[in-house]
Amino acid sequence: MSLSKEEIADWFRNLQLHICSELEAEDGKAKFVEDNWQRPGGGGGHTRVIQHGNVFEKGGVNFSAVHGELSDRIMQALGLNDNQFFATGVSIVIHPINPFVPIIHMNVRYFELGDGTYWFGGGIDLTPHYIQKEDAQFFHSALKSTCDRFDADYYPEFKKWADDYFYISHRKETRGIGGIFFDRLKEDQSHTKEQRWNFVQAVGETFAPTYRHLVAKNKSAKYSDSNLQWRNLRRGRYVEFNLVYDKGTKFGLETDGRIESILMSLPETASWFYNFQPADNSLERETLDLLRKDIGWADN
Amino acid sequence: MSLSKEEIADWFRNLQLHICSELEAEDGKAKFVEDNWQRPGGGGGHTRVIQHGNVFEKGGVNFSAVHGELSDRIMQALGLNDNQFFATGVSIVIHPINPFVPIIHMNVRYFELGDGTYWFGGGIDLTPHYIQKEDAQFFHSALKSTCDRFDADYYPEFKKWADDYFYISHRKETRGIGGIFFDRLKEDQSHTKEQRWNFVQAVGETFAPTYRHLVAKNKSAKYSDSNLQWRNLRRGRYVEFNLVYDKGTKFGLETDGRIESILMSLPETASWFYNFQPADNSLERETLDLLRKDIGWADN
Repeated sequence: MSLSKEEIADWFRNLQLHICSELEAEDGKAKFVEDNWQRPGGGGGHTRVIQHGNVFEKGGVNFSAVHGELSDRIMQALGLNDNQFFATGVSIVIHPINPFVPIIHMNVRYFELGDGTYWFGGGIDLTPHYIQKEDAQFFHSALKSTCDRFDADYYPEFKKWADDYFYISHRKETRGIGGIFFDRLKEDQSHTKEQRWNFVQAVGETFAPTYRHLVAKNKSAKYSDSNLQWRNLRRGRYVEFNLVYDKGTKFGLETDGRIESILMSLPETASWFYNFQPADNSLERETLDLLRKDIGWADN
Repeated sequence: MSLSKEEIADWFRNLQLHICSELEAEDGKAKFVEDNWQRPGGGGGHTRVIQHGNVFEKGGVNFSAVHGELSDRIMQALGLNDNQFFATGVSIVIHPINPFVPIIHMNVRYFELGDGTYWFGGGIDLTPHYIQKEDAQFFHSALKSTCDRFDADYYPEFKKWADDYFYISHRKETRGIGGIFFDRLKEDQSHTKEQRWNFVQAVGETFAPTYRHLVAKNKSAKYSDSNLQWRNLRRGRYVEFNLVYDKGTKFGLETDGRIESILMSLPETASWFYNFQPADNSLERETLDLLRKDIGWADN
Protein backbone atom coordinates (compact mmCIF):
# COMPACT_ATOMS: atom_id res chain seq x y z
CA MET A 1 0.00 0.00 0.00
CA SER A 2 1.62 3.22 -1.12
CA LEU A 3 -0.70 5.56 0.80
CA SER A 4 0.91 6.12 4.20
CA LYS A 5 -0.59 7.52 7.36
CA GLU A 6 1.99 10.32 7.31
CA GLU A 7 0.83 11.32 3.84
CA ILE A 8 -2.77 11.41 5.01
CA ALA A 9 -1.90 13.45 8.08
CA ASP A 10 0.13 15.93 6.02
CA TRP A 11 -2.74 16.40 3.62
CA PHE A 12 -5.15 17.01 6.52
CA ARG A 13 -2.81 19.58 8.04
CA ASN A 14 -2.67 21.43 4.72
CA LEU A 15 -6.43 21.24 4.42
CA GLN A 16 -6.72 22.84 7.85
CA LEU A 17 -4.48 25.74 6.86
CA HIS A 18 -6.26 26.20 3.54
CA ILE A 19 -9.70 26.29 5.16
CA CYS A 20 -8.48 28.76 7.76
CA SER A 21 -7.29 31.22 5.11
CA GLU A 22 -10.55 30.85 3.21
CA LEU A 23 -12.52 31.62 6.36
CA GLU A 24 -10.27 34.56 7.22
CA ALA A 25 -10.84 35.96 3.74
CA GLU A 26 -14.59 35.63 4.16
CA ASP A 27 -14.52 37.23 7.60
CA GLY A 28 -12.31 40.14 6.55
CA LYS A 29 -11.19 40.99 10.09
CA ALA A 30 -10.41 38.21 12.54
CA LYS A 31 -7.43 35.86 12.21
CA PHE A 32 -7.05 32.34 13.48
CA VAL A 33 -4.85 31.86 16.52
CA GLU A 34 -3.06 28.53 16.79
CA ASP A 35 -2.45 26.48 19.94
CA ASN A 36 -0.11 23.54 19.60
CA TRP A 37 -0.56 20.69 22.02
CA GLN A 38 1.06 17.37 22.76
CA ARG A 39 -0.89 14.32 23.79
CA PRO A 40 0.77 12.64 26.80
CA GLY A 41 0.16 9.17 25.30
CA GLY A 42 1.59 10.12 21.87
CA GLY A 43 1.18 12.68 19.09
CA GLY A 44 -0.61 16.01 19.34
CA GLY A 45 -2.39 18.64 17.38
CA HIS A 46 -2.83 22.20 16.23
CA THR A 47 -6.03 23.85 17.42
CA ARG A 48 -6.89 26.99 15.46
CA VAL A 49 -9.57 29.33 16.77
CA ILE A 50 -11.12 32.45 15.24
CA GLN A 51 -13.06 34.82 17.48
CA HIS A 52 -14.96 38.09 17.37
CA GLY A 53 -14.65 38.68 13.66
CA ASN A 54 -16.93 40.61 11.33
CA VAL A 55 -18.79 37.40 10.56
CA PHE A 56 -17.61 34.66 12.89
CA GLU A 57 -18.18 34.93 16.61
CA LYS A 58 -16.34 31.74 17.50
CA GLY A 59 -14.99 29.02 15.29
CA GLY A 60 -12.48 26.25 15.60
CA VAL A 61 -10.56 24.31 12.97
CA ASN A 62 -8.72 21.52 14.72
CA PHE A 63 -6.03 19.23 13.30
CA SER A 64 -4.68 16.30 15.23
CA ALA A 65 -2.50 13.26 14.62
CA VAL A 66 -2.34 11.08 17.69
CA HIS A 67 -1.16 7.59 18.43
CA GLY A 68 -0.76 5.23 21.35
CA GLU A 69 -2.58 2.41 23.03
CA LEU A 70 -6.33 1.94 23.19
CA SER A 71 -7.89 0.95 26.49
CA ASP A 72 -9.53 -2.48 26.70
CA ARG A 73 -12.89 -0.78 27.15
CA ILE A 74 -12.58 1.14 23.89
CA MET A 75 -11.19 -1.86 21.97
CA GLN A 76 -14.22 -3.81 23.10
CA ALA A 77 -16.65 -0.99 22.28
CA LEU A 78 -15.19 -0.67 18.76
CA GLY A 79 -14.74 -4.42 18.28
CA LEU A 80 -10.99 -4.19 17.64
CA ASN A 81 -8.18 -6.74 17.97
CA ASP A 82 -5.12 -4.54 18.26
CA ASN A 83 -4.48 -1.81 20.80
CA GLN A 84 -1.88 0.21 18.84
CA PHE A 85 -3.74 3.04 17.14
CA PHE A 86 -3.06 6.05 14.97
CA ALA A 87 -5.74 8.66 14.30
CA THR A 88 -5.62 11.87 12.31
CA GLY A 89 -8.19 14.32 11.07
CA VAL A 90 -9.62 17.78 10.79
CA SER A 91 -12.62 18.87 12.78
CA ILE A 92 -14.47 22.16 12.34
CA VAL A 93 -17.32 24.00 14.01
CA ILE A 94 -18.12 27.61 13.11
CA HIS A 95 -20.60 29.80 15.02
CA PRO A 96 -21.36 33.00 13.11
CA ILE A 97 -22.75 36.20 14.61
CA ASN A 98 -25.53 36.87 12.10
CA PRO A 99 -28.53 34.63 12.82
CA PHE A 100 -29.10 34.21 9.08
CA VAL A 101 -25.66 32.68 8.55
CA PRO A 102 -25.72 28.96 9.39
CA ILE A 103 -23.53 27.07 11.85
CA ILE A 104 -21.41 24.50 10.02
CA HIS A 105 -19.58 21.39 11.12
CA MET A 106 -17.12 19.21 9.23
CA ASN A 107 -15.00 16.26 10.23
CA VAL A 108 -12.70 14.16 8.08
CA ARG A 109 -10.60 11.50 9.75
CA TYR A 110 -8.45 8.43 9.29
CA PHE A 111 -7.91 5.67 11.80
CA GLU A 112 -5.35 2.87 11.65
CA LEU A 113 -4.38 -0.01 13.93
CA GLY A 114 -1.06 -1.77 14.41
CA ASP A 115 -2.42 -4.82 12.56
CA GLY A 116 -3.15 -2.75 9.43
CA THR A 117 -6.90 -2.39 10.00
CA TYR A 118 -7.94 1.11 8.93
CA TRP A 119 -10.92 3.20 8.02
CA PHE A 120 -11.98 6.69 6.98
CA GLY A 121 -14.86 8.62 8.46
CA GLY A 122 -16.34 12.08 8.44
CA GLY A 123 -18.98 14.31 6.98
CA ILE A 124 -20.30 17.84 6.69
CA ASP A 125 -23.58 19.07 8.13
CA LEU A 126 -25.29 22.43 8.36
CA THR A 127 -27.27 23.96 11.22
CA PRO A 128 -29.08 27.08 10.03
CA HIS A 129 -30.70 29.12 12.81
CA TYR A 130 -33.26 29.97 10.13
CA ILE A 131 -33.73 27.36 7.41
CA GLN A 132 -33.85 28.95 3.96
CA LYS A 133 -34.96 26.40 1.42
CA GLU A 134 -32.79 27.77 -1.37
CA ASP A 135 -29.69 27.51 0.82
CA ALA A 136 -30.59 24.03 2.03
CA GLN A 137 -30.99 22.88 -1.58
CA PHE A 138 -27.70 24.48 -2.57
CA PHE A 139 -25.88 22.84 0.34
CA HIS A 140 -27.25 19.36 -0.23
CA SER A 141 -26.75 19.60 -3.99
CA ALA A 142 -23.10 20.51 -3.45
CA LEU A 143 -22.62 17.46 -1.21
CA LYS A 144 -24.48 15.22 -3.62
CA SER A 145 -22.39 16.44 -6.51
CA THR A 146 -19.17 15.62 -4.60
CA CYS A 147 -20.51 12.19 -3.62
CA ASP A 148 -21.75 11.37 -7.11
CA ARG A 149 -18.24 11.81 -8.56
CA PHE A 150 -17.27 8.67 -6.61
CA ASP A 151 -20.28 6.44 -6.06
CA ALA A 152 -23.97 6.96 -6.80
CA ASP A 153 -24.83 5.21 -3.53
CA TYR A 154 -22.78 7.57 -1.37
CA TYR A 155 -25.13 10.53 -1.17
CA PRO A 156 -28.37 8.65 -0.41
CA GLU A 157 -26.64 6.44 2.13
CA PHE A 158 -24.59 9.14 3.84
CA LYS A 159 -27.43 11.67 3.80
CA LYS A 160 -29.65 9.22 5.67
CA TRP A 161 -26.80 8.48 8.07
CA ALA A 162 -26.51 12.21 8.86
CA ASP A 163 -30.28 12.52 9.36
CA ASP A 164 -30.17 9.68 11.87
CA TYR A 165 -26.99 10.80 13.58
CA PHE A 166 -27.71 14.52 14.04
CA TYR A 167 -31.00 13.90 15.79
CA ILE A 168 -31.88 15.35 19.21
CA SER A 169 -34.22 12.60 20.29
CA HIS A 170 -35.35 14.25 23.54
CA ARG A 171 -36.50 17.26 21.46
CA LYS A 172 -37.78 15.19 18.55
CA GLU A 173 -35.87 17.59 16.29
CA THR A 174 -32.92 17.21 13.96
CA ARG A 175 -30.01 19.47 14.91
CA GLY A 176 -30.16 21.23 11.54
CA ILE A 177 -30.67 20.21 7.94
CA GLY A 178 -28.12 17.39 8.12
CA GLY A 179 -25.70 16.76 5.28
CA ILE A 180 -23.57 13.65 4.93
CA PHE A 181 -22.05 11.39 7.58
CA PHE A 182 -19.97 8.26 7.01
CA ASP A 183 -17.70 5.98 8.98
CA ARG A 184 -15.67 2.79 8.64
CA LEU A 185 -14.98 3.30 4.93
CA LYS A 186 -12.29 0.86 3.83
CA GLU A 187 -11.38 -0.96 0.65
CA ASP A 188 -13.90 -3.47 -0.61
CA GLN A 189 -14.86 -5.13 -3.90
CA SER A 190 -15.97 -1.81 -5.38
CA HIS A 191 -13.47 0.64 -3.86
CA THR A 192 -9.73 0.75 -3.38
CA LYS A 193 -8.18 2.51 -0.41
CA GLU A 194 -7.07 5.29 -2.77
CA GLN A 195 -10.62 5.75 -4.01
CA ARG A 196 -11.92 6.06 -0.46
CA TRP A 197 -9.17 8.56 0.31
CA ASN A 198 -9.89 10.56 -2.82
CA PHE A 199 -13.51 10.77 -1.74
CA VAL A 200 -12.56 11.98 1.74
CA GLN A 201 -10.25 14.56 0.18
CA ALA A 202 -13.07 15.73 -2.07
CA VAL A 203 -15.35 16.14 0.96
CA GLY A 204 -12.65 18.23 2.64
CA GLU A 205 -12.34 20.37 -0.47
CA THR A 206 -16.09 20.86 -0.70
CA PHE A 207 -16.18 22.64 2.63
CA ALA A 208 -14.68 26.06 1.88
CA PRO A 209 -16.42 27.03 -1.38
CA THR A 210 -19.78 25.70 -0.16
CA TYR A 211 -19.71 27.47 3.18
CA ARG A 212 -18.25 30.68 1.71
CA HIS A 213 -21.17 30.84 -0.70
CA LEU A 214 -23.68 30.55 2.15
CA VAL A 215 -21.84 33.04 4.32
CA ALA A 216 -21.39 35.59 1.53
CA LYS A 217 -25.06 35.35 0.62
CA ASN A 218 -26.31 35.99 4.15
CA LYS A 219 -23.68 37.85 6.12
CA SER A 220 -25.16 41.27 5.45
CA ALA A 221 -28.74 40.30 6.25
CA LYS A 222 -30.40 42.65 8.75
CA TYR A 223 -31.43 41.10 12.05
CA SER A 224 -33.29 42.06 15.21
CA ASP A 225 -32.87 41.28 18.91
CA SER A 226 -35.52 38.62 18.59
CA ASN A 227 -33.52 36.99 15.75
CA LEU A 228 -30.54 36.95 18.12
CA GLN A 229 -32.62 35.34 20.87
CA TRP A 230 -33.70 32.62 18.47
CA ARG A 231 -30.09 32.14 17.34
CA ASN A 232 -29.09 31.66 20.98
CA LEU A 233 -31.92 29.21 21.57
CA ARG A 234 -30.84 27.18 18.53
CA ARG A 235 -27.29 27.29 19.86
CA GLY A 236 -28.66 25.84 23.11
CA ARG A 237 -29.97 22.90 21.10
CA TYR A 238 -26.51 22.58 19.51
CA VAL A 239 -25.00 22.36 23.00
CA GLU A 240 -27.57 19.73 23.98
CA PHE A 241 -26.70 17.60 20.97
CA ASN A 242 -22.95 17.87 21.45
CA LEU A 243 -22.95 17.15 25.18
CA VAL A 244 -25.66 14.47 25.21
CA TYR A 245 -25.23 12.60 21.93
CA ASP A 246 -22.12 13.45 19.92
CA LYS A 247 -19.85 10.42 19.84
CA GLY A 248 -16.68 12.40 19.16
CA THR A 249 -17.34 14.68 22.13
CA LYS A 250 -18.17 11.77 24.45
CA PHE A 251 -15.10 9.86 23.29
CA GLY A 252 -12.94 12.92 23.95
CA LEU A 253 -14.39 13.53 27.41
CA GLU A 254 -14.08 9.89 28.43
CA THR A 255 -10.50 9.48 27.16
CA ASP A 256 -9.23 12.61 28.84
CA GLY A 257 -8.64 14.48 25.57
CA ARG A 258 -7.59 18.14 25.44
CA ILE A 259 -10.79 19.63 26.78
CA GLU A 260 -10.48 23.06 25.14
CA SER A 261 -10.05 21.44 21.72
CA ILE A 262 -13.01 19.12 22.24
CA LEU A 263 -15.36 21.80 23.55
CA MET A 264 -14.31 24.51 21.10
CA SER A 265 -17.45 23.27 19.30
CA LEU A 266 -19.62 25.06 21.87
CA PRO A 267 -20.86 28.57 21.03
CA GLU A 268 -19.73 31.65 22.90
CA THR A 269 -23.28 32.20 24.14
CA ALA A 270 -26.31 29.93 24.21
CA SER A 271 -29.77 30.28 25.74
CA TRP A 272 -32.58 28.25 27.21
CA PHE A 273 -35.98 29.89 27.51
CA TYR A 274 -38.52 27.88 29.46
CA ASN A 275 -41.12 26.33 27.16
CA PHE A 276 -40.53 28.75 24.27
CA GLN A 277 -43.12 28.37 21.51
CA PRO A 278 -42.67 30.31 18.27
CA ALA A 279 -45.69 32.20 16.94
CA ASP A 280 -47.79 30.64 14.19
CA ASN A 281 -46.53 31.46 10.70
CA SER A 282 -43.29 32.95 12.04
CA LEU A 283 -39.89 32.23 10.48
CA GLU A 284 -39.00 30.44 13.70
CA ARG A 285 -42.06 28.18 13.42
CA GLU A 286 -41.20 27.45 9.78
CA THR A 287 -37.68 26.42 10.77
CA LEU A 288 -38.93 24.19 13.58
CA ASP A 289 -41.27 22.46 11.15
CA LEU A 290 -38.31 21.70 8.88
CA LEU A 291 -36.12 20.22 11.61
CA ARG A 292 -36.99 16.66 10.69
CA LYS A 293 -35.44 13.71 8.91
CA ASP A 294 -35.90 12.59 5.33
CA ILE A 295 -36.40 15.89 3.56
CA GLY A 296 -35.14 15.47 0.00
CA TRP A 297 -33.23 18.75 -0.22
CA ALA A 298 -31.26 17.58 -3.28
CA ASP A 299 -34.26 16.07 -5.07
CA ASN A 300 -35.11 19.02 -7.26
CA MET B 1 -46.79 1.28 58.13
CA SER B 2 -48.82 4.40 58.76
CA LEU B 3 -46.82 6.69 56.45
CA SER B 4 -48.48 6.50 53.03
CA LYS B 5 -47.14 7.61 49.68
CA GLU B 6 -50.08 9.99 49.32
CA GLU B 7 -49.11 11.64 52.59
CA ILE B 8 -45.53 12.05 51.39
CA ALA B 9 -46.62 13.47 48.03
CA ASP B 10 -49.00 15.93 49.72
CA TRP B 11 -46.24 17.13 51.99
CA PHE B 12 -43.90 17.62 49.01
CA ARG B 13 -46.55 19.59 47.14
CA ASN B 14 -46.97 21.89 50.14
CA LEU B 15 -43.21 22.25 50.42
CA GLN B 16 -43.09 23.33 46.79
CA LEU B 17 -45.74 26.02 47.37
CA HIS B 18 -44.07 27.22 50.55
CA ILE B 19 -40.65 27.51 48.90
CA CYS B 20 -42.16 29.39 45.95
CA SER B 21 -43.69 32.01 48.23
CA GLU B 22 -40.44 32.39 50.12
CA LEU B 23 -38.55 32.93 46.86
CA GLU B 24 -41.16 35.39 45.60
CA ALA B 25 -40.84 37.35 48.82
CA GLU B 26 -37.06 37.47 48.42
CA ASP B 27 -37.31 38.51 44.78
CA GLY B 28 -39.90 41.23 45.40
CA LYS B 29 -41.08 41.38 41.80
CA ALA B 30 -41.46 38.16 39.79
CA LYS B 31 -44.10 35.51 40.49
CA PHE B 32 -44.00 31.81 39.78
CA VAL B 33 -46.09 30.60 36.87
CA GLU B 34 -47.42 27.06 37.13
CA ASP B 35 -47.71 24.49 34.33
CA ASN B 36 -49.63 21.34 35.14
CA TRP B 37 -48.78 18.25 33.17
CA GLN B 38 -49.94 14.67 32.96
CA ARG B 39 -47.61 11.76 32.40
CA PRO B 40 -48.99 9.45 29.70
CA GLY B 41 -47.94 6.36 31.73
CA GLY B 42 -49.52 7.62 34.97
CA GLY B 43 -49.49 10.62 37.32
CA GLY B 44 -48.12 14.05 36.53
CA GLY B 45 -46.74 17.18 38.06
CA HIS B 46 -46.79 20.90 38.65
CA THR B 47 -43.84 22.77 37.19
CA ARG B 48 -43.42 26.27 38.63
CA VAL B 49 -41.07 28.72 36.96
CA ILE B 50 -39.97 32.21 37.99
CA GLN B 51 -38.33 34.45 35.39
CA HIS B 52 -36.89 37.94 34.99
CA GLY B 53 -37.31 39.05 38.58
CA ASN B 54 -35.34 41.59 40.55
CA VAL B 55 -33.06 38.81 41.78
CA PHE B 56 -33.84 35.61 39.91
CA GLU B 57 -33.27 35.38 36.19
CA LYS B 58 -34.67 31.88 35.80
CA GLY B 59 -35.66 29.36 38.39
CA GLY B 60 -37.78 26.26 38.55
CA VAL B 61 -39.46 24.51 41.46
CA ASN B 62 -40.89 21.26 40.19
CA PHE B 63 -43.24 18.88 41.97
CA SER B 64 -44.20 15.52 40.52
CA ALA B 65 -45.95 12.36 41.61
CA VAL B 66 -45.80 9.74 38.91
CA HIS B 67 -46.49 6.04 38.72
CA GLY B 68 -46.55 3.23 36.20
CA GLU B 69 -44.34 0.47 34.96
CA LEU B 70 -40.56 0.47 34.82
CA SER B 71 -38.84 -0.81 31.70
CA ASP B 72 -36.76 -3.97 31.99
CA ARG B 73 -33.66 -1.94 31.27
CA ILE B 74 -34.26 0.39 34.20
CA MET B 75 -35.23 -2.42 36.58
CA GLN B 76 -31.97 -4.12 35.72
CA ALA B 77 -29.95 -0.90 36.07
CA LEU B 78 -31.47 -0.25 39.50
CA GLY B 79 -31.43 -3.90 40.58
CA LEU B 80 -35.18 -4.08 41.21
CA ASN B 81 -37.61 -6.99 41.30
CA ASP B 82 -40.94 -5.28 40.71
CA ASN B 83 -41.92 -3.09 37.79
CA GLN B 84 -44.77 -1.16 39.44
CA PHE B 85 -43.34 2.11 40.68
CA PHE B 86 -44.43 5.31 42.36
CA ALA B 87 -42.12 8.33 42.60
CA THR B 88 -42.70 11.76 44.06
CA GLY B 89 -40.49 14.68 44.88
CA VAL B 90 -39.54 18.32 44.64
CA SER B 91 -36.69 19.48 42.46
CA ILE B 92 -35.30 23.03 42.37
CA VAL B 93 -32.69 24.95 40.41
CA ILE B 94 -32.40 28.74 40.75
CA HIS B 95 -30.22 30.93 38.50
CA PRO B 96 -29.89 34.45 39.92
CA ILE B 97 -28.94 37.54 37.91
CA ASN B 98 -26.30 38.96 40.26
CA PRO B 99 -23.00 37.04 39.86
CA PHE B 100 -22.44 37.28 43.62
CA VAL B 101 -25.64 35.40 44.40
CA PRO B 102 -25.09 31.63 44.14
CA ILE B 103 -26.98 29.14 42.03
CA ILE B 104 -28.75 26.59 44.24
CA HIS B 105 -30.14 23.13 43.65
CA MET B 106 -32.31 20.96 45.87
CA ASN B 107 -33.99 17.64 45.33
CA VAL B 108 -36.03 15.60 47.82
CA ARG B 109 -37.72 12.46 46.60
CA TYR B 110 -39.46 9.24 47.55
CA PHE B 111 -39.59 6.07 45.49
CA GLU B 112 -41.77 3.01 46.10
CA LEU B 113 -42.33 -0.28 44.30
CA GLY B 114 -45.38 -2.53 44.13
CA ASP B 115 -43.64 -5.04 46.41
CA GLY B 116 -43.22 -2.46 49.19
CA THR B 117 -39.56 -1.68 48.51
CA TYR B 118 -39.00 2.06 49.03
CA TRP B 119 -36.32 4.64 49.57
CA PHE B 120 -35.74 8.35 50.04
CA GLY B 121 -33.14 10.40 48.25
CA GLY B 122 -32.12 13.98 47.74
CA GLY B 123 -29.82 16.74 48.82
CA ILE B 124 -28.99 20.43 48.55
CA ASP B 125 -25.89 21.85 46.90
CA LEU B 126 -24.64 25.34 46.16
CA THR B 127 -22.85 26.67 43.06
CA PRO B 128 -21.50 30.15 43.74
CA HIS B 129 -20.13 31.95 40.68
CA TYR B 130 -17.74 33.53 43.18
CA ILE B 131 -16.94 31.46 46.24
CA GLN B 132 -17.05 33.55 49.41
CA LYS B 133 -15.66 31.58 52.30
CA GLU B 134 -18.01 33.06 54.88
CA ASP B 135 -21.02 32.05 52.78
CA ALA B 136 -19.66 28.58 52.10
CA GLN B 137 -19.14 28.06 55.83
CA PHE B 138 -22.62 29.33 56.60
CA PHE B 139 -24.17 27.04 54.00
CA HIS B 140 -22.37 23.89 55.09
CA SER B 141 -22.93 24.65 58.77
CA ALA B 142 -26.66 24.96 58.12
CA LEU B 143 -26.70 21.56 56.40
CA LYS B 144 -24.57 20.00 59.10
CA SER B 145 -26.86 21.35 61.79
CA THR B 146 -29.91 19.82 60.05
CA CYS B 147 -28.12 16.50 59.59
CA ASP B 148 -26.83 16.39 63.17
CA ARG B 149 -30.37 16.57 64.56
CA PHE B 150 -30.89 13.07 63.12
CA ASP B 151 -27.60 11.21 62.89
CA ALA B 152 -24.01 12.32 63.49
CA ASP B 153 -22.91 10.22 60.51
CA TYR B 154 -25.24 11.91 58.05
CA TYR B 155 -23.29 15.10 57.36
CA PRO B 156 -19.81 13.59 56.85
CA GLU B 157 -21.21 10.79 54.71
CA PHE B 158 -23.60 12.91 52.63
CA LYS B 159 -21.11 15.78 52.24
CA LYS B 160 -18.57 13.40 50.74
CA TRP B 161 -21.27 11.92 48.51
CA ALA B 162 -22.05 15.41 47.18
CA ASP B 163 -18.35 16.15 46.58
CA ASP B 164 -18.07 12.96 44.54
CA TYR B 165 -21.36 13.39 42.70
CA PHE B 166 -21.14 17.06 41.69
CA TYR B 167 -17.78 16.64 40.01
CA ILE B 168 -17.07 17.66 36.42
CA SER B 169 -14.37 15.11 35.74
CA HIS B 170 -13.44 16.40 32.25
CA ARG B 171 -12.71 19.82 33.84
CA LYS B 172 -11.20 18.38 37.02
CA GLU B 173 -13.43 20.81 38.92
CA THR B 174 -16.33 20.41 41.32
CA ARG B 175 -19.53 22.08 40.06
CA GLY B 176 -19.61 24.34 43.11
CA ILE B 177 -19.03 23.94 46.83
CA GLY B 178 -21.15 20.81 47.13
CA GLY B 179 -23.50 20.31 50.04
CA ILE B 180 -25.22 17.03 50.88
CA PHE B 181 -26.39 14.21 48.63
CA PHE B 182 -28.04 10.96 49.68
CA ASP B 183 -29.95 8.11 48.11
CA ARG B 184 -31.56 4.77 48.95
CA LEU B 185 -32.34 5.75 52.54
CA LYS B 186 -34.68 3.17 54.03
CA GLU B 187 -35.37 1.76 57.47
CA ASP B 188 -32.56 -0.18 59.08
CA GLN B 189 -31.46 -1.16 62.57
CA SER B 190 -30.78 2.44 63.52
CA HIS B 191 -33.57 4.28 61.67
CA THR B 192 -37.30 3.81 61.22
CA LYS B 193 -39.02 4.88 58.02
CA GLU B 194 -40.51 7.81 59.95
CA GLN B 195 -37.07 8.94 61.07
CA ARG B 196 -35.79 8.86 57.49
CA TRP B 197 -38.84 10.82 56.39
CA ASN B 198 -38.43 13.36 59.17
CA PHE B 199 -34.85 13.88 58.04
CA VAL B 200 -35.92 14.41 54.41
CA GLN B 201 -38.57 16.87 55.58
CA ALA B 202 -35.95 18.72 57.60
CA VAL B 203 -33.72 18.97 54.52
CA GLY B 204 -36.65 20.41 52.56
CA GLU B 205 -37.29 22.93 55.34
CA THR B 206 -33.63 23.95 55.44
CA PHE B 207 -33.75 25.20 51.88
CA ALA B 208 -35.70 28.44 52.12
CA PRO B 209 -34.14 30.14 55.18
CA THR B 210 -30.62 29.12 54.14
CA TYR B 211 -30.89 30.33 50.57
CA ARG B 212 -32.79 33.48 51.55
CA HIS B 213 -29.94 34.39 53.88
CA LEU B 214 -27.38 34.02 51.08
CA VAL B 215 -29.52 35.90 48.58
CA ALA B 216 -30.34 38.74 50.96
CA LYS B 217 -26.67 39.15 51.86
CA ASN B 218 -25.48 39.40 48.24
CA LYS B 219 -28.33 40.56 46.05
CA SER B 220 -27.32 44.22 46.18
CA ALA B 221 -23.63 43.63 45.48
CA LYS B 222 -22.27 45.80 42.65
CA TYR B 223 -21.01 43.93 39.62
CA SER B 224 -19.27 44.62 36.32
CA ASP B 225 -19.55 43.23 32.79
CA SER B 226 -16.58 41.01 33.48
CA ASN B 227 -18.37 39.59 36.54
CA LEU B 228 -21.30 38.79 34.24
CA GLN B 229 -18.98 37.07 31.75
CA TRP B 230 -17.58 34.93 34.52
CA ARG B 231 -21.10 34.15 35.74
CA ASN B 232 -22.00 32.98 32.23
CA LEU B 233 -18.86 30.87 31.99
CA ARG B 234 -19.68 29.18 35.32
CA ARG B 235 -23.21 28.64 34.03
CA GLY B 236 -21.62 26.92 31.02
CA ARG B 237 -19.96 24.51 33.44
CA TYR B 238 -23.35 23.98 35.08
CA VAL B 239 -24.79 23.04 31.67
CA GLU B 240 -21.89 20.66 31.08
CA PHE B 241 -22.49 18.91 34.39
CA ASN B 242 -26.23 18.60 33.92
CA LEU B 243 -26.11 17.34 30.34
CA VAL B 244 -23.08 15.07 30.68
CA TYR B 245 -23.27 13.66 34.22
CA ASP B 246 -26.48 14.37 36.10
CA LYS B 247 -28.33 11.10 36.66
CA GLY B 248 -31.73 12.73 37.07
CA THR B 249 -31.36 14.60 33.77
CA LYS B 250 -30.13 11.53 31.92
CA PHE B 251 -32.93 9.41 33.39
CA GLY B 252 -35.46 12.02 32.31
CA LEU B 253 -34.08 12.30 28.77
CA GLU B 254 -33.90 8.54 28.32
CA THR B 255 -37.38 7.84 29.65
CA ASP B 256 -39.05 10.51 27.54
CA GLY B 257 -39.93 12.73 30.49
CA ARG B 258 -41.44 16.20 30.09
CA ILE B 259 -38.47 17.87 28.51
CA GLU B 260 -39.24 21.45 29.62
CA SER B 261 -39.49 20.31 33.25
CA ILE B 262 -36.24 18.36 33.06
CA LEU B 263 -34.25 21.10 31.34
CA MET B 264 -35.68 23.99 33.37
CA SER B 265 -32.43 23.47 35.29
CA LEU B 266 -30.49 25.14 32.47
CA PRO B 267 -29.74 28.86 32.75
CA GLU B 268 -31.25 31.45 30.44
CA THR B 269 -27.79 32.27 29.09
CA ALA B 270 -24.48 30.45 29.33
CA SER B 271 -21.09 31.02 27.71
CA TRP B 272 -18.01 29.19 26.56
CA PHE B 273 -14.85 31.20 25.96
CA TYR B 274 -12.04 29.27 24.33
CA ASN B 275 -9.29 28.46 26.80
CA PHE B 276 -10.24 31.18 29.29
CA GLN B 277 -7.64 31.58 32.05
CA PRO B 278 -8.38 33.91 34.96
CA ALA B 279 -5.65 36.35 35.96
CA ASP B 280 -3.40 35.52 38.89
CA ASN B 281 -4.78 36.68 42.24
CA SER B 282 -8.17 37.51 40.72
CA LEU B 283 -11.46 36.59 42.41
CA GLU B 284 -12.08 34.22 39.51
CA ARG B 285 -8.75 32.47 40.11
CA GLU B 286 -9.53 32.18 43.80
CA THR B 287 -12.88 30.56 43.02
CA LEU B 288 -11.31 28.11 40.56
CA ASP B 289 -8.78 27.09 43.20
CA LEU B 290 -11.63 26.29 45.60
CA LEU B 291 -13.58 24.13 43.13
CA ARG B 292 -12.26 20.91 44.58
CA LYS B 293 -13.39 18.09 46.81
CA ASP B 294 -12.83 17.57 50.51
CA ILE B 295 -12.80 21.14 51.77
CA GLY B 296 -14.03 21.10 55.36
CA TRP B 297 -16.35 24.08 55.11
CA ALA B 298 -18.19 23.15 58.33
CA ASP B 299 -15.05 22.34 60.31
CA ASN B 300 -14.63 25.69 62.04
